[in-house]
Amino acid sequence: MPAITFEQSGAFIERFTLPATRSGPLDGLTFAVKDLIDVAGRHTGCGNPTWLATHPPATVSAICVEQLLAAGAECAGKTITDEIAFSLLGENHFYGTPLNPAAPNRVPGGSSSGSASAVACGLVDFALGTDTGGSVRVPASNCGIFGLRPSHGFISVAGVMPLAPSLDCVGFFARDIDTLRRVAEVLLPAEDDSALPPIPATIHIVREAFELADPDVREALAGAIAKLRNTFGGDVRETSLADLCRDQRAADMATWLTIYRVLQGTEMTSCHGTWIDEAQPSFGPAPSAGLTFVKKLDRTRMSETIHLREHYCRRLNGSLGTGDLLCLPSAPTIAPLKNSKAYERTSDYYQRTLSLTAIAGAGRLPQISLPLGHVGGAPIGLSLAAARGADKYLLQIAKRFVE
Amino acid sequence: MPAITFEQSGAFIERFTLPATRSGPLDGLTFAVKDLIDVAGRHTGCGNPTWLATHPPATVSAICVEQLLAAGAECAGKTITDEIAFSLLGENHFYGTPLNPAAPNRVPGGSSSGSASAVACGLVDFALGTDTGGSVRVPASNCGIFGLRPSHGFISVAGVMPLAPSLDCVGFFARDIDTLRRVAEVLLPAEDDSALPPIPATIHIVREAFELADPDVREALAGAIAKLRNTFGGDVRETSLADLCRDQRAADMATWLTIYRVLQGTEMTSCHGTWIDEAQPSFGPAPSAGLTFVKKLDRTRMSETIHLREHYCRRLNGSLGTGDLLCLPSAPTIAPLKNSKAYERTSDYYQRTLSLTAIAGAGRLPQISLPLGHVGGAPIGLSLAAARGADKYLLQIAKRFVE
Repeated sequence: MPAITFEQSGAFIERFTLPATRSGPLDGLTFAVKDLIDVAGRHTGCGNPTWLATHPPATVSAICVEQLLAAGAECAGKTITDEIAFSLLGENHFYGTPLNPAAPNRVPGGSSSGSASAVACGLVDFALGTDTGGSVRVPASNCGIFGLRPSHGFISVAGVMPLAPSLDCVGFFARDIDTLRRVAEVLLPAEDDSALPPIPATIHIVREAFELADPDVREALAGAIAKLRNTFGGDVRETSLADLCRDQRAADMATWLTIYRVLQGTEMTSCHGTWIDEAQPSFGPAPSAGLTFVKKLDRTRMSETIHLREHYCRRLNGSLGTGDLLCLPSAPTIAPLKNSKAYERTSDYYQRTLSLTAIAGAGRLPQISLPLGHVGGAPIGLSLAAARGADKYLLQIAKRFVE
Repeated sequence: MPAITFEQSGAFIERFTLPATRSGPLDGLTFAVKDLIDVAGRHTGCGNPTWLATHPPATVSAICVEQLLAAGAECAGKTITDEIAFSLLGENHFYGTPLNPAAPNRVPGGSSSGSASAVACGLVDFALGTDTGGSVRVPASNCGIFGLRPSHGFISVAGVMPLAPSLDCVGFFARDIDTLRRVAEVLLPAEDDSALPPIPATIHIVREAFELADPDVREALAGAIAKLRNTFGGDVRETSLADLCRDQRAADMATWLTIYRVLQGTEMTSCHGTWIDEAQPSFGPAPSAGLTFVKKLDRTRMSETIHLREHYCRRLNGSLGTGDLLCLPSAPTIAPLKNSKAYERTSDYYQRTLSLTAIAGAGRLPQISLPLGHVGGAPIGLSLAAARGADKYLLQIAKRFVE
């Protein structure tokens, strides 16, 4: 593949060089920052011109950016995001669609579209994104790269635009597992790993997640699952979400979709409704479709959904003992074609994708998307997830698996 | 005590009546909201006139407010907060000092000063506050009421001004444990309580926390600790933080102070530094003292503190098994006298108090302050804390203990 230029990628909203502030474990690496995350001296636009016009340039960087700079990495610029992170496609009405080099006629996925593209195009070593309902995992799957949504709450969100705080995570992309792990060493807390088994105790192949996926996605990932059995040899079994949550409703993916939509929609409105009413921003079709959907939510009934989420969070983490993993497709399908209008919230694409990504979201679980499948030449990711807090164990197992 | 009027309390920045949106478990109760939390149709001021002038009135309420309204409670107004929640005293330079009815010559404590005062004065049944470094626990202790800082992350912060997201919690006050529990039933997720022991397995009396307190505070709480032994009879023992964290540095309260200060200071700057630089707000002496302190932090070295926090969080939660509790003073001393200038960050008051409140902060633990002691007529609270997620168990034990 000939080198792709910054211009060809369309991944960056702004290019600059911000040198490392100290030498450290990321010496020599370059990274890009989703334009939802503050970088001192730069104007965070959140993918929307009205946001840009109604907020001053940042004078302080987000914590996560400073951690990377202080670990030796150099920042190469800021990348396009879907407007206020409120889309899964990566088609920004105002700033364009970053290139998905692995499937150029398809979307990169969003909302961390430019960060995924910049990494996939080889323009930086790694990139920061955010993931509320799949915005790291889905573009990683679409673009054929590695992406980690860490345990909720472990990477500071100070200086990061919120979308839905109960679900928001800073995550990151890389082309190889070693780079992903180097970044994780800086951003994620160390674990007491002495008690961790060198191979997973149980890998639960999540039944409903695979049933939800396209048949050709299941087929494309079958080889990777066979390799999972061969590599670790242990207890690799198909498990229902009803068993993991000890609740029959969890076997219905519509339950997960509802949890995600109510949490994200109500929190998004509490975070940004005042700004939207005040600034009357121009939105492209993707966030507009989302806002239309959100307005229909009955906010007086949200407590029951919040409680159900916490119930499942507790049960999922209770079911995942030391060394246990979940395995699921990162997305139910390959990246949609460009201009497919799949942003409609009632679209089959949206509904299936969000219900899948909602599992780790509700559970506050770390989830890594591994670029292990192809359908008709386009990438599809296989995901592994673990109990909250087991991020580094997850990365360690992922490394053994992909090598 | 003769009834205290709203005017006499000085607790409210704005009074209004917002009726419940549904009938529910909080029918008949009234509550107040710290003016850091959005209420639709009201102008969130965050205790500072420049903030008020540079932000539009809220058109959407915070999630936590809507949950309460939908559970049958009626909102009676918004209460004074320390400026941008950046003080522990409760003396607002612009809006005054809410009355501490239990010790009228002393401060109510902050930053949730007005909410604590409104409850202590009997003007509402309960009130919402926020707690980053003690802003619910300390005013509860000062004013002789009950206050809960829940497990970090369980009450949505959507629509709540952030101070330091890794530490910020929405919490609440009440005059009696039953009201506190009724509110918790609405705002906090249910637990699988079938496996919980009816009496605590072990209550760890935190050695360094009591050593840090004034001798007369230790004396004032001795009776309550004796009652703790008598009520539960089980394993009530003095334990060092070094043992709970399996790390000798944890026995030095200066370690906890550093964790809190680095996390809070760096995150606060990433959240609000841009606004401060842009709006050039007028601040009273308390936040000004805090900002002067924060500017001295070496932001390139914050990762090591973030990692130490996560290490202690993991160890504390690992040490607190099912049914285990911590016991510590809510504050090292009774409320300071008014106009004591104790807001200087190098003051003995600030340093001791923050190092004490940092334990539950770093551990993401729920902590309840119980009004169980008096020194020279002024209240002092005894606190119980539990593992993250054991909020309702904590409340259940607290109820048995205080009845």
